[in-house]
Amino acid sequence: MKIGIAQINPVVGDFPGNAKRILAAYRECLEAGADLVITPELSLVGYPPRDLVFKSQFVPKCLQALDYLAGEIREIPLLVGYVDHNHPARPGKPFRNAAAWLSHGVIQHRIWKTLLPTYDVFDERRYFEPGESSEPITWGGIRIGITICEDIWTEDYLQRPFYDRDPVDDLSAKGIDLLLNLSASPFHLGKPLLRRAMIGGVARKAKVPVIYCNTVGANDQLVFDGHSLVADANGRIATQLPGFEVASKVIDPFLPVETEAPSNDSDPEQLYCALVLGVRDYVTKCGFSSVCLGLSGGIDSALTAAIAADALGPENVVGLTMPSPYSSRGSVDDSFALAKNLGIQCTEVPILEAFEAIKATMQPLFVGKPEDVTEENMQARIRGLLLMSLSNKDNHLLLTTGNKSELAVGYCTIYGDMCGGLAVISDLPKIRVYEVSRWINRDREIIPWDTIDKPPSAELRPDQKDQDTLPPYEILDKILELYVECQLSSDEIISRGFEESTVRWIQRRVDLNEWKRHQAAPGLRVTSKAFGIGRRMPIVQKFIG
Amino acid sequence: MKIGIAQINPVVGDFPGNAKRILAAYRECLEAGADLVITPELSLVGYPPRDLVFKSQFVPKCLQALDYLAGEIREIPLLVGYVDHNHPARPGKPFRNAAAWLSHGVIQHRIWKTLLPTYDVFDERRYFEPGESSEPITWGGIRIGITICEDIWTEDYLQRPFYDRDPVDDLSAKGIDLLLNLSASPFHLGKPLLRRAMIGGVARKAKVPVIYCNTVGANDQLVFDGHSLVADANGRIATQLPGFEVASKVIDPFLPVETEAPSNDSDPEQLYCALVLGVRDYVTKCGFSSVCLGLSGGIDSALTAAIAADALGPENVVGLTMPSPYSSRGSVDDSFALAKNLGIQCTEVPILEAFEAIKATMQPLFVGKPEDVTEENMQARIRGLLLMSLSNKDNHLLLTTGNKSELAVGYCTIYGDMCGGLAVISDLPKIRVYEVSRWINRDREIIPWDTIDKPPSAELRPDQKDQDTLPPYEILDKILELYVECQLSSDEIISRGFEESTVRWIQRRVDLNEWKRHQAAPGLRVTSKAFGIGRRMPIVQKFIG
Repeated sequence: MKIGIAQINPVVGDFPGNAKRILAAYRECLEAGADLVITPELSLVGYPPRDLVFKSQFVPKCLQALDYLAGEIREIPLLVGYVDHNHPARPGKPFRNAAAWLSHGVIQHRIWKTLLPTYDVFDERRYFEPGESSEPITWGGIRIGITICEDIWTEDYLQRPFYDRDPVDDLSAKGIDLLLNLSASPFHLGKPLLRRAMIGGVARKAKVPVIYCNTVGANDQLVFDGHSLVADANGRIATQLPGFEVASKVIDPFLPVETEAPSNDSDPEQLYCALVLGVRDYVTKCGFSSVCLGLSGGIDSALTAAIAADALGPENVVGLTMPSPYSSRGSVDDSFALAKNLGIQCTEVPILEAFEAIKATMQPLFVGKPEDVTEENMQARIRGLLLMSLSNKDNHLLLTTGNKSELAVGYCTIYGDMCGGLAVISDLPKIRVYEVSRWINRDREIIPWDTIDKPPSAELRPDQKDQDTLPPYEILDKILELYVECQLSSDEIISRGFEESTVRWIQRRVDLNEWKRHQAAPGLRVTSKAFGIGRRMPIVQKFIG
Repeated sequence: MKIGIAQINPVVGDFPGNAKRILAAYRECLEAGADLVITPELSLVGYPPRDLVFKSQFVPKCLQALDYLAGEIREIPLLVGYVDHNHPARPGKPFRNAAAWLSHGVIQHRIWKTLLPTYDVFDERRYFEPGESSEPITWGGIRIGITICEDIWTEDYLQRPFYDRDPVDDLSAKGIDLLLNLSASPFHLGKPLLRRAMIGGVARKAKVPVIYCNTVGANDQLVFDGHSLVADANGRIATQLPGFEVASKVIDPFLPVETEAPSNDSDPEQLYCALVLGVRDYVTKCGFSSVCLGLSGGIDSALTAAIAADALGPENVVGLTMPSPYSSRGSVDDSFALAKNLGIQCTEVPILEAFEAIKATMQPLFVGKPEDVTEENMQARIRGLLLMSLSNKDNHLLLTTGNKSELAVGYCTIYGDMCGGLAVISDLPKIRVYEVSRWINRDREIIPWDTIDKPPSAELRPDQKDQDTLPPYEILDKILELYVECQLSSDEIISRGFEESTVRWIQRRVDLNEWKRHQAAPGLRVTSKAFGIGRRMPIVQKFIG
């Protein structure tokens, strides 16, 4: 018995394109001898389709595409994820998160997802009605249990026991020989290892092999890492498909496992690969072929440029270095050195003249008022304006380069350095920015060492350094993790030994800058809690804790 | 039997402040002879708290505040909305959307919300576990059924039968003499009338009086209009509390109704009142006391200024008129005429010098390339930059002035005229902008008639008019309503008699500009489907329909 795992990269709402991707992978698996082929959750739709499902023709067109796919399938069955209607007379949500078993030209079986995640980045109860129970499918002499993503995430791997049922237990009680799972499980650091442990545990408990087919590719803020898995009935990981790339593989899940498949790459390598995939998919799925960005000579823009050059090719990355009177010559030199190392284009565009003109324009209103953060923001906004004009003129997508630490405390200028269509490293804390940059330089200097080694500065006033305003990044990032990711209160964080004034300053800055993040570009999520669709804070609120 | 209805305006997460607001209204009702006082849904918390509930100390502090409130209450009971924990060992979501019956210094009863809306702007299944059944409370010789918001929205008033149970039927079967409902029901045009019909229907079906206490005030994008209601057992509306303001009233629900309470104001008046309340609450709850905005001489900025002057007082509104070489003198004159009519400050700041400096800065990169939309956007972005510098220097909140029609088709410049902390009229289609503006001028000219009567123009190139680019607003707004609010496909809209090329152009523009709206300022929702938290479209997607 050979199963083909088609780890494909669907585009949301692209039914004809996704059908083609599915068929190509299906045929590849057939050639490699598959007896059955599995694709990811909502493989025909792309995950997550979000409110597109409410468009009057979305689900009808999905079902048309499913019929077309079914017509292409003969003896070897194909498992496809799609969206179905709930019965119009049945109370509940209008749709089902569904899987179809296609063979001999028709839909032989339909399976509904039972456990619908409605937390973090997931909104499935907004759209879907849960299935109540699924029946094993007998095929080729074995009984196959089919589940969709969350259905196999047992409560040991969730934040709390969310559900009052366990679809794997139900299937086991009915008797199965093999468990299949169609998934769209987004990446964050630690998730691939967690999945190995979880899938192994499910296999051990159900005493059957498990085949876990995950989607790959990025859709908006979510990066799906692939890393599809096969576990034997003892919970040993027989096979792990590649991370962050389209792949297919045909395996026999009943073969005994001698040695487990090797596990994942290092943290910085995973982060880097996730961001490269995220940039490539965001830019190309949006129909752009090139990007521009501002190069400040600092580490954030350097890392962003390196990721973009890898994702799109250096010929498709255009840098601007925009020195102000407060910029050091070193910053411009570092930008050119970076551009040379990466092979990307870089142009110097000084902002002094524009800065003087803007100041002169506002002078009548500012008479007698000292220069302050207003003039710092002016510089950042002039740079944003210049970059957007380059983006407009030459049809580049502008990448914004801020990291998670500064976005958290609002150490960034809205409509200034926050300008851009995609916030590439906005979920990387500053310490991780250094870690990934050093990893990039592991063999040779790509990001100039001077950029990595010098003290970080926004260069918006003479001799400015980040640490004039911010706590040291080692401290800042630790407190931010406790406050933002763990959602602890200031008091709880202080009780862990952090300085009270620092903690309260950070807490206040995070809360006060919610409005700024509301208008931030979408970012690629790589930690368990990004500023993005998985974190929904009110702007107008007075809770302090 | 006299019931006090406390239609209060809570601030999200402000437990001490909300407790004070509740107690003040409670005492006011006591003085007016109330035997029992009801407050809105989550009255102690503010609606919606969103992900604040996940903060480790949020619910504990809410429960502390509830205990404090209970301690203040003697014989006359108080009904308060709050968030409770779900039992830690019970599967499901961690929290309950709850109501507490406080009397004699303690919490006498706790009621869980049964039907949890998870559609449109609502995310309650993300946080709350539904209650299963609630018992009537016997008090003062009568049996009272207590429900929370959605619990009484029968399927006739929902998009489809979402729920497989009916809490009012359950309570009726157990026997009740009076039905109470704590609500946080946000405004959109048509909602107040819908509620009257719905509450009347509930009363008729259950054959008991209904008291419906709604919250008032704005939290982020949602404006709550109050309009609390009392229906007699025949479904006649005995009392309607004022719209868009804090109010309390003591009524006897068992008195026979002679004539029904008058219904709502006209559409433009409701829209105007909703936006005034929305601006006032957003600005003041955020801790600002003044706003600034750009005055273009056009109708959008004029209406926004008029709303702001009413909401905050004209002395707290500062206008900038920023003519370019393409601005007509009439536009500047209209801005000054508006400022004079409203009593707000207005300063003229020409952008020519800054525009020339920016063009000169980019000239080396733009050699040989013709002027295009890039230079139009430059002007809008220079204005955004100047307004933000005024906002920074003098601590005004910047209001952005775009309407829904232009936001829909992306006829606006990101980081330009889209700059600002609040998008006041971003849910008003252009035709409604005219309607509300004419209503404002019903007694005397406030918005200059010239502003209302002249053809709309962005004035970003010589002799530009909106209708050079856009279909006539009468057509555009009708098609947008069908596409965005009704979610119909292009084909369905065309089949209703609209021109194919116009429909497809609009559909494409709406879809392509999702990325721009992702970075838009929060807007005040006044229609059934705003661009905002109730509409969650992917940016990267290829569905056409």
